[in-house]
Amino acid sequence: MNALVNCNRGVEVAYGADQFTATLAQAYSNFFERETFIFPVSTGTAGNGLALGAITPPYGTIFCHESAHIVTTEAGAPEFYSGGGRMTLLAGEHHKISPAVLEDGLRRHGIGNVHHMAVSAFSLTQATEAGVVYELDELHALSEIAHAAGMKVHLDGARLANAIVRLGVTPAEMTWKAGVDILTFGTIKNGTMNAEAVITFDPEIAKVLSVMHKRAGHLCSKMRYMSVQLLSYLEDDLWLRNALQANWNAEHIAGVLRPCAGVELVHPVHINEVFAILPASLLEALRNKDIHLRPWNFGSKGQGVRIVMSYCDSTEQIQRFEQACREHGPSEASSLRVHR
Amino acid sequence: MNALVNCNRGVEVAYGADQFTATLAQAYSNFFERETFIFPVSTGTAGNGLALGAITPPYGTIFCHESAHIVTTEAGAPEFYSGGGRMTLLAGEHHKISPAVLEDGLRRHGIGNVHHMAVSAFSLTQATEAGVVYELDELHALSEIAHAAGMKVHLDGARLANAIVRLGVTPAEMTWKAGVDILTFGTIKNGTMNAEAVITFDPEIAKVLSVMHKRAGHLCSKMRYMSVQLLSYLEDDLWLRNALQANWNAEHIAGVLRPCAGVELVHPVHINEVFAILPASLLEALRNKDIHLRPWNFGSKGQGVRIVMSYCDSTEQIQRFEQACREHGPSEASSLRVHR
Amino acid sequence: MNALVNCNRGVEVAYGADQFTATLAQAYSNFFERETFIFPVSTGTAGNGLALGAITPPYGTIFCHESAHIVTTEAGAPEFYSGGGRMTLLAGEHHKISPAVLEDGLRRHGIGNVHHMAVSAFSLTQATEAGVVYELDELHALSEIAHAAGMKVHLDGARLANAIVRLGVTPAEMTWKAGVDILTFGTIKNGTMNAEAVITFDPEIAKVLSVMHKRAGHLCSKMRYMSVQLLSYLEDDLWLRNALQANWNAEHIAGVLRPCAGVELVHPVHINEVFAILPASLLEALRNKDIHLRPWNFGSKGQGVRIVMSYCDSTEQIQRFEQACREHGPSEASSLRVHR
Amino acid sequence: MNALVNCNRGVEVAYGADQFTATLAQAYSNFFERETFIFPVSTGTAGNGLALGAITPPYGTIFCHESAHIVTTEAGAPEFYSGGGRMTLLAGEHHKISPAVLEDGLRRHGIGNVHHMAVSAFSLTQATEAGVVYELDELHALSEIAHAAGMKVHLDGARLANAIVRLGVTPAEMTWKAGVDILTFGTIKNGTMNAEAVITFDPEIAKVLSVMHKRAGHLCSKMRYMSVQLLSYLEDDLWLRNALQANWNAEHIAGVLRPCAGVELVHPVHINEVFAILPASLLEALRNKDIHLRPWNFGSKGQGVRIVMSYCDSTEQIQRFEQACREHGPSEASSLRVHR
Repeated sequence: MNALVNCNRGVEVAYGADQFTATLAQAYSNFFERETFIFPVSTGTAGNGLALGAITPPYGTIFCHESAHIVTTEAGAPEFYSGGGRMTLLAGEHHKISPAVLEDGLRRHGIGNVHHMAVSAFSLTQATEAGVVYELDELHALSEIAHAAGMKVHLDGARLANAIVRLGVTPAEMTWKAGVDILTFGTIKNGTMNAEAVITFDPEIAKVLSVMHKRAGHLCSKMRYMSVQLLSYLEDDLWLRNALQANWNAEHIAGVLRPCAGVELVHPVHINEVFAILPASLLEALRNKDIHLRPWNFGSKGQGVRIVMSYCDSTEQIQRFEQACREHGPSEASSLRVHR
Repeated sequence: MNALVNCNRGVEVAYGADQFTATLAQAYSNFFERETFIFPVSTGTAGNGLALGAITPPYGTIFCHESAHIVTTEAGAPEFYSGGGRMTLLAGEHHKISPAVLEDGLRRHGIGNVHHMAVSAFSLTQATEAGVVYELDELHALSEIAHAAGMKVHLDGARLANAIVRLGVTPAEMTWKAGVDILTFGTIKNGTMNAEAVITFDPEIAKVLSVMHKRAGHLCSKMRYMSVQLLSYLEDDLWLRNALQANWNAEHIAGVLRPCAGVELVHPVHINEVFAILPASLLEALRNKDIHLRPWNFGSKGQGVRIVMSYCDSTEQIQRFEQACREHGPSEASSLRVHR
Repeated sequence: MNALVNCNRGVEVAYGADQFTATLAQAYSNFFERETFIFPVSTGTAGNGLALGAITPPYGTIFCHESAHIVTTEAGAPEFYSGGGRMTLLAGEHHKISPAVLEDGLRRHGIGNVHHMAVSAFSLTQATEAGVVYELDELHALSEIAHAAGMKVHLDGARLANAIVRLGVTPAEMTWKAGVDILTFGTIKNGTMNAEAVITFDPEIAKVLSVMHKRAGHLCSKMRYMSVQLLSYLEDDLWLRNALQANWNAEHIAGVLRPCAGVELVHPVHINEVFAILPASLLEALRNKDIHLRPWNFGSKGQGVRIVMSYCDSTEQIQRFEQACREHGPSEASSLRVHR
Repeated sequence: MNALVNCNRGVEVAYGADQFTATLAQAYSNFFERETFIFPVSTGTAGNGLALGAITPPYGTIFCHESAHIVTTEAGAPEFYSGGGRMTLLAGEHHKISPAVLEDGLRRHGIGNVHHMAVSAFSLTQATEAGVVYELDELHALSEIAHAAGMKVHLDGARLANAIVRLGVTPAEMTWKAGVDILTFGTIKNGTMNAEAVITFDPEIAKVLSVMHKRAGHLCSKMRYMSVQLLSYLEDDLWLRNALQANWNAEHIAGVLRPCAGVELVHPVHINEVFAILPASLLEALRNKDIHLRPWNFGSKGQGVRIVMSYCDSTEQIQRFEQACREHGPSEASSLRVHR
């Protein structure tokens, strides 16, 4: 954060759009080990909307998970940015789409059937809204199916850094090497103030994006305030260190929760999120330590909590959490219900 | 059909748009017992698209059944005509939406939640794609809920005449008296060549439609060729006689099928459609009489047929059907599985 | 017309979509001497909207004449079908765009300027709304400039038959051989009831059109009623004979008007339209013969009339017109003001 | 600027969306002396797009000046945000629309003509792109005509502070008291980093905006970084002091230029912009003092410059400008050509 504030002060000397573009594009091209086109935006919704709009015509459909953020919480951004597209919803445990489900969805839709919309884009979320990651071979399999059907592959990377850290792969391996054509590169949840980015490796898509980016009002006149955030994010591996710390904190909390009596971890803990059903007694023990968890609705499984860990959680906070759990006491056979 | 051909010849003397509009609007105002605004179109997809577009802004959502024709087979017409709207899908047996399901859908969506699209329209199909009708009290209950949520109510009436005949109500009772704001009035499936119509009772919606109708290219320069179809449809109760005959034919065929060994009627037979699962032996018996039924996929229930009866089925055709069934033989307890 | 009525009766035996498509596409492929994709629609507005929408993304602009029908009288169909495109307006005498004007317009717009919309389509009208035709070499020059800028070329052919007859060229020479990628093929003004068509020679554009055509509600379930019109139009050169007759009638009327005192022909008479400023005395002489001309506003030039001649004008009507002019009397030097 | 940087540091303690909304809406309600709904965005293009999209349906048209920023330099944002609307262009000296021109434009368009788009919005720019202001009585006359035609009135206020200062009126008098329904409130050109706002006084429009704002990706998750800019802008009359200084600087520079030989001021100097045609000799004299002016194309009037003065121009810079002019020498009768 200090780095950001310093940069924020340092740029008061104006510099031109071209220099900015060049620097930013160069930094991200290095990061992704390939020529990269980057379009800064101020929200994840803008990023997803622009990215999907650039690869989906008004008569096209986007295959995605029924619980994807683009479906549930972005007020129709994909429909807006595509100018009339539709999302075709697929199911899957832990908010993941399996290759078999994608293939089946395409078969049921039919390609070239004029009574159905054109098959245009496949969007996946890495890590998913359930905090679970796709393995590299899953990404490869999915993008192969999508490309064969004539779709472009979009990756919603609101928590991409955490997923990269989890898998121990390079940004290149996680994206274009796995068949990703365009991605929403999230940084706000991992350290910046209000800068996300749409990133593509395809110059044709980049050409479309350059007009859409301006037209939607996301091309800032004083772009330097966003650029410094996106540049600082890469400097000294800030993104990596933040994500590592956040993932580690979540792993730690999950480890503390697992043995507790009556606790169920609903999804595997891959990144910095823990989804769990806790007994009322434990919730009260936590509240007594001034820890207030966000309620989460698990549908037929009932009510639980979502715990999002951050790079800036303090040791003291984590110790209070541990203490509450310890005082609440262990389960006899809780491990049986835990996914890993 | 003769009536249509005669009319088609009769209009070679040109007459003006105003006279046409006046005549058509007057005829349908009489039909619906209220001032009626009518916009002829050449397909049901155009009708549904225009109707929904007139009541759904680009940021709005349409609540409808997941099996509605607008969802499954119109290539995204609602998204196109609304300029970016979305359909929110509801479930329900026999393709009907119950008041409880609509209420629950609205509760889960949330009204005024900026992360979700605005709640704009409720679309129901009468009769449904399963050939089943909503009773008047169901229509009243649904439109009351929809209106309370700020939605306009659209009725897809591709088989409206058949539904009116089934319920023995007036066109007025079936539409505006039951809270319907706008409807797609189907006539092609019940006798005309290529004329359907969007009908509304609300002058504000009519104002919007008049521009959209032109803009979408559905305002014909030689409108008289469509008007005569829509006028003839009402003359001498042609619509009523055709629908009565078609419904009666379906009821008759259902009565023939019910006692047959191994036959399951999947949906109640309310109008001119019979959805059934037939044993292979019966299908063969029918084929031997030169009767070829359209295969229909009932999902988890398996494969069956859809039989659509028409006002112009011949007695001879129906007798051949009966003969095949008689030769195939009756079931011992088939009636237990029959819906009515 | 008889041919159409006969066909209209003849098709009561249903035939399948595939047979229809095959027949129609084959007939038009022969007509255009190349594989042709044809999409019937019921209005010219639908035709223009679909054609332009298929080649213009929501962020694209269409260069066209400021007096084009798509600009002045189609209620925003191009914006609707493109989902947010814009028309960039060019000027030019007799509603024609010169190559120099197109080049200048492109230069002022700038290609690749993110503050301006993408350059997507060039639309010209043949013959123009002023009844004037582009020569083949003008078409070649324009489409070359357009293609070099990355645009697709659209031709609004509401009066294409009349233009073909005027130039004495083949349909192929007038369209794809001159660089036209897609056209609206008008037939209603030249004989049919309610059938126009979008025609393209590009299979990629055809793929887009096939979904858009359905989605906009222009894919008729009983398509045969439209197909017979479009097929009859080509049979026995009906299109050619109608257009020849209509052009000849207009040429004749222009010849009668030219020598009249106080008459100004505002545009050259190339097809079946005569635009003229007539003295009040002549207008009265015509009215006395029961001839009522359509008033036309020529802007700064003042008020005049538009005379559209048809293949079905009777000899008696034309003779009455001649008589009125003869009685009104000749000008001494009227020919000086006449364009040819 | 110091105020902004201080605030920017101060907000590291997170505070909730509701508190932010309440504070910001309250501050602007005080500023405008009426309940005000405010939606922060990061660019003027986003502001104009959202504002116009909220009052223009896809089938609607926006009347505006042919040189308006929304027409020339926003890549089709109004078409995008309205989902297919169109801008109808009006002419006028100094980029101002007169009441007579608006009335004439509406008459030529025709209201309720289905062949033309619906008349939805009137957009004016205060001050105009030529740096000229509308007087209050002009605003009143224009909005009265627009409202009578059923349009909503939008004001593009990229330089609103400068216009308010020029006229010596209150923000309320300049906006809702003059019939403005919605405005784009520019602050970036007058001091902030990347925060503009859409402001409306109409709760119905605000309801629409709240969904569109999210859907377009302009509702920031960490909204506080934008709010502090918009709040600081009002504190201690920062907006007023900046605008006063910038206007004064421009007035001063105009006073220096007017007497110079060969100088023509193309537009009256009302705010902080000076548009002028300068002799080559003067341009060189300025360059020798290291002053480089931005070239500006005045169409048929030829090439000139645009000088935008700012609240942060230094006395030293201005003195260098004066010196160059003094050395270049005065005109004998230059004042004749000056507008005031």
